[in-house]
This record gives sequence, structure tokens and C-alpha cells, in this order.
Amino acid sequence: MSAEFDLIRRHFSRPAPGATLGVGDDAALLDLSPGNQLAVTTDTLVAGVHFLTDVQPAALGWKAAAVNLSDLAAMGARPRWLTLALTLPQADDNWLAEFARGFYDCAAAAGAELVGGDTTQGPLSITVTAMGEIGPGRALRRNAARPGQDIWVSGELGDAALGLAALRGEILADLADQAVLLSRLTLPQPRNALGIALTMGLASACIDVSDGLLADLGHILTASATGAVLRWPDIPLSAAARHFSQMGDFATRVLAGGDDYELCFTADVARRSDLDKLAGRLGVRLTRIGEITALPGLHLLDETGREMTRSQSGYAHFNA
Amino acid sequence: MSAEFDLIRRHFSRPAPGATLGVGDDAALLDLSPGNQLAVTTDTLVAGVHFLTDVQPAALGWKAAAVNLSDLAAMGARPRWLTLALTLPQADDNWLAEFARGFYDCAAAAGAELVGGDTTQGPLSITVTAMGEIGPGRALRRNAARPGQDIWVSGELGDAALGLAALRGEILADLADQAVLLSRLTLPQPRNALGIALTMGLASACIDVSDGLLADLGHILTASATGAVLRWPDIPLSAAARHFSQMGDFATRVLAGGDDYELCFTADVARRSDLDKLAGRLGVRLTRIGEITALPGLHLLDETGREMTRSQSGYAHFNA
Repeated sequence: MSAEFDLIRRHFSRPAPGATLGVGDDAALLDLSPGNQLAVTTDTLVAGVHFLTDVQPAALGWKAAAVNLSDLAAMGARPRWLTLALTLPQADDNWLAEFARGFYDCAAAAGAELVGGDTTQGPLSITVTAMGEIGPGRALRRNAARPGQDIWVSGELGDAALGLAALRGEILADLADQAVLLSRLTLPQPRNALGIALTMGLASACIDVSDGLLADLGHILTASATGAVLRWPDIPLSAAARHFSQMGDFATRVLAGGDDYELCFTADVARRSDLDKLAGRLGVRLTRIGEITALPGLHLLDETGREMTRSQSGYAHFNA
Repeated sequence: MSAEFDLIRRHFSRPAPGATLGVGDDAALLDLSPGNQLAVTTDTLVAGVHFLTDVQPAALGWKAAAVNLSDLAAMGARPRWLTLALTLPQADDNWLAEFARGFYDCAAAAGAELVGGDTTQGPLSITVTAMGEIGPGRALRRNAARPGQDIWVSGELGDAALGLAALRGEILADLADQAVLLSRLTLPQPRNALGIALTMGLASACIDVSDGLLADLGHILTASATGAVLRWPDIPLSAAARHFSQMGDFATRVLAGGDDYELCFTADVARRSDLDKLAGRLGVRLTRIGEITALPGLHLLDETGREMTRSQSGYAHFNA
């Protein structure tokens, strides 16, 4: 590539002491801790599809790392290494410095190091591959949900989707709410400490909520050949989100909006008190929102216990 | 993503028996063979930059895998796993079937399996991450060249660059030559068996020739703090390439054109007969093209032993 693009590499050459060999040779060399498997995931962010083109570069760098670290969290793997493939229309030193800052900040918060990359000229897009370690047999797989288990979710749902709606002018939020919702959209917090803790005999199946709770829980149900009952009144919401609860499509935005990067997991009923203690220890809200059922299908119940039906506009419309 | 893009995944869900868990969960799970390090590399191909937009999809799939496997070859790592992040303007079933065929064919030839991926909508680009195994301390690093060692190159150089020139109408090749040159451009053969063999005490430093011999050998010289003398008459050329040897910029196209995906490596003089035997055993041409020098700088000598100088148009112009 051009000298311009050689310059880019300066922004992504911080040392990676956890790698035997980091950026700068044909490949990075990595030593697994003894008795561990490697968990590997990759995700692409494309301008105009996954982010608005005027996004702050630091937030974009953060998010590119975060969405991949979130997949490792959903397996319960300990984040170790990242590779970054960055395609850019042109090299802008300030933009790159900010992007790199956001990327490294998110990686460092999760204990991961950048060990390889590629920079190319073209329409803005970012592909990150994240590698983590996990003990054999400990990974939280989607196929491990069993009838009778509780369904839990971390944090709060819907903020990111409402933040995107505010950005698009579809909803009008006051400044304080807007700050909360937008930060959830632009700076998602991958739940790596939670994912690792859940592998210690606490959870069975787990997935991160990126496409919306209904879609992602649906992946667990399909893989586990089970169904689920969800209680809409138990879905955890932030104070900012609650301000919009009278909107006609509120439930759809919360349950199908996506970009939450919270963990949805299943656990035996006997683990309830352990999970409540874990929530306190990690400072992460953990909420029981339903149960796994033997009968297939995903049923959403309203505050009166009646089933909410899916319509064109989603789950916002209740049975009469 | 849309149902359309869900369909894409069908093309990339072949089983990966070498992975503990392949495509379909939040991350793949991989077991390293005991006593091995992981070698990781990533490369992006962007439409209009790294390939012409009318390229055959099977060739594009092959090349996306090949350029990454070539980086593993340059480390001497045994290819094991690949992830694929594919960004496409729209999902075309025939295009995807052909792309997948080329990708899997190249991967299988190198013994690698696809274990994860992401498909997104956007301008056509492809990022592959390749993972291989290598025994600790055995990797062929760029910093291991020592003065007095031979410089070797595999195969023949320049065919891919001449193939691109033919595609662009810059040179006129007869049909037989064109077939040879274009196949070298579109279906590069990563030298994984050679790279693995070179780790058995045969080579010191190694790099794959992707940006042209002069640039890539330059990376070895910089990393090793050495110089080199190269003999232009010893550079291995195909019969097809020799037909263009009277062109004014022929040496530049051969030495700086890139896309060769051959291995350039250094080795002790005492390894000459072993390397000649290895060439016979693998059916790969191996050619000594120069020596590493203590004095920095890269010197290219013509058939009379005089130095060829670098000019605006490259190394095509000789000292008077």
C-alpha cells in the first residue's frame, strides 16, 4: 500500500506483551495457557449499515472491539487477542488517533491485546477478529438450555434502540435521557467478567443480545430444541427508557431493536441466589425474565399473564 | 441481518471436523495440538483495489483464502482454521456458490477449515483471518537473516504482475502465455508445505512475496539489520514471462509488481544440498538469487556484475 497507509500502522502498533509476537511479521504468534481452548469470533461494521457515517471515530473504534468482545463474553471465554482489518477511503491522522484510542480503550478494559491487522483503501468498513481462552467443556453454548431453567438477562434492554431512534429524530428525548441512550448505543459495554463468571457452573446456554432479545433468545431455543415463556413486565428497563413506555411500538423497540450487547442466559432454578450474589459482586444488574419450556415456541406474557401477539409492527400490540 | 443474508450462511456452513465447535455459536472453539503456538494473520481484499470487480467469484474466493494462507506459509505454521467476513452489495446465490467453492477448495488444499464468519451488506470486500500452529521457537521470523546466508525464492516471479498488465491491455500476450500469467494472478498457490518444511532447521528468515520481491525482502533486511546483494540474471522466470523480457520496465514488473505469493527466505550455505533435495521432493522450484550482507542496503547486480540503479520507473534502467 501507499506510504499514506504505512503511516496508519503507527496508530496500531502498541506493544502486546501477552503475545509471543505481535504486529509486524507475517503473523502473530500466540501461546495459549495450558489446558485452554481458543474461542474465535469475527464481526464486520460497515459505514451506513452498522453505524452512521458521522459517528465519532473514538466511539467507532470502541464499538468495533466491543461487538466482538461481546461474542467472547457470550461463550464465557477470557479475551486475549484481537486482529483489526480497517478499510478507509483516506488516511486522516486525527481520525485514526481517535479511532485507535477508542479501540485500545475497549480492548484494555476487557484485557485483550491487538496482535495483527491490515489496512486497506476503500469504503469505510472494519472487521475485527477476537480470540479468547476457555477451559475445555466450559463454554456457554447455545444448545445447553433445558426445560424448567430460568432465563436471565444482564443490564437493561432497549436503550441502544431508543438512542438510535433519538438520533434519527423518530423520538424526542430530553438532554439527560438522550445522553444515557446514546452512550448505550455508541459505547456498549461487553459483559466479559460476567461471561467468565457464568462458566463456573452458574449458567447453561448463553448468547449476547445484538439483534434483539427475541431474535437472539430464539437462537438458543432453536439450538436447544426448547421453547420459552417471557414476562414483558420483568424486562429490565432504564429510567430513560421508561420515559418512552407509552409509545405504540415501545415493546418492539425494546425486544427487537438490538445493539444491547447484554447477555441472555439460562440457569437452573437452584442457581438463583448465587446469581443474585454475583450481580452484587460485579455491580451488574441480573434479572430473571422467564423460563425455558419443553414445548417449542416463544411466548411473551403481559402484566395480566395474557399472551402478547406478534403483528406487522412487532410485539407492541396486545390481545384484546 | 435480513433473511436474504441468512441464506448466505448456507454457503459457508460446511462441517469443520478439526474444530471442537465450528460455525453457528457466538464463537468457534479450537483445540491447539499440545506444544504448539498459534500463528494468526488477517488480510482484506477490497473491490477495485485488490481485484477487478468483474473477477470470477470462484477465483476471488480462492484468492481471499490464499493470501492469508500465504502469510502462514511465510511463518512456517501449519494452517488449521479460517474465519471469513464477507461484505456484499446483495446476495446472489450463484455468485455465492462459486465464491464458496473457490474459498473451500483453497482452504482444503492447505488443510485449513472455515470455523467462523460474518456476512454484511455493503460495498464488496472480504476479510479473512487465518490461524495456524507452529512449535514454539520454530517460526520463520523476518529478523533471523544473517550475513553470508543465501537468499532463496520459490517458484517464479513476475507472472502475476504480467497477468495484470495483460488484463489491463498494457501488454499483448498470446493465448497460451495469457492463460499461464492470468492463472498465476487469479489462483496463487500458497506455499504451505514448503513453509512447514523450512522450519525443520533449513531456513532462517522468511516472507511471502505479496508486494514485490524488493519490498518484501526489504522487510527482512530491516528487521534483521542486514543488507543484500541480488543477482538479476538468477531471478527465476517462467517461459511465459521471458517472452516479455525486452520490455523497458520488465525488471520492475518482475521485482516490484507483487502478487507472486512465493516465499523468499534465507538459509545457511551448508543447507544448499538439503534445499535442492527439498525442492525435488515437493516439486517446487527453489532458486538461490543472492546473499545477505552485513552492510545495509539492497544491491541488484546485472549479468556483468554491475549494479542496476533505481530510477523513477524502477529497476529497468542499467548503469551506462
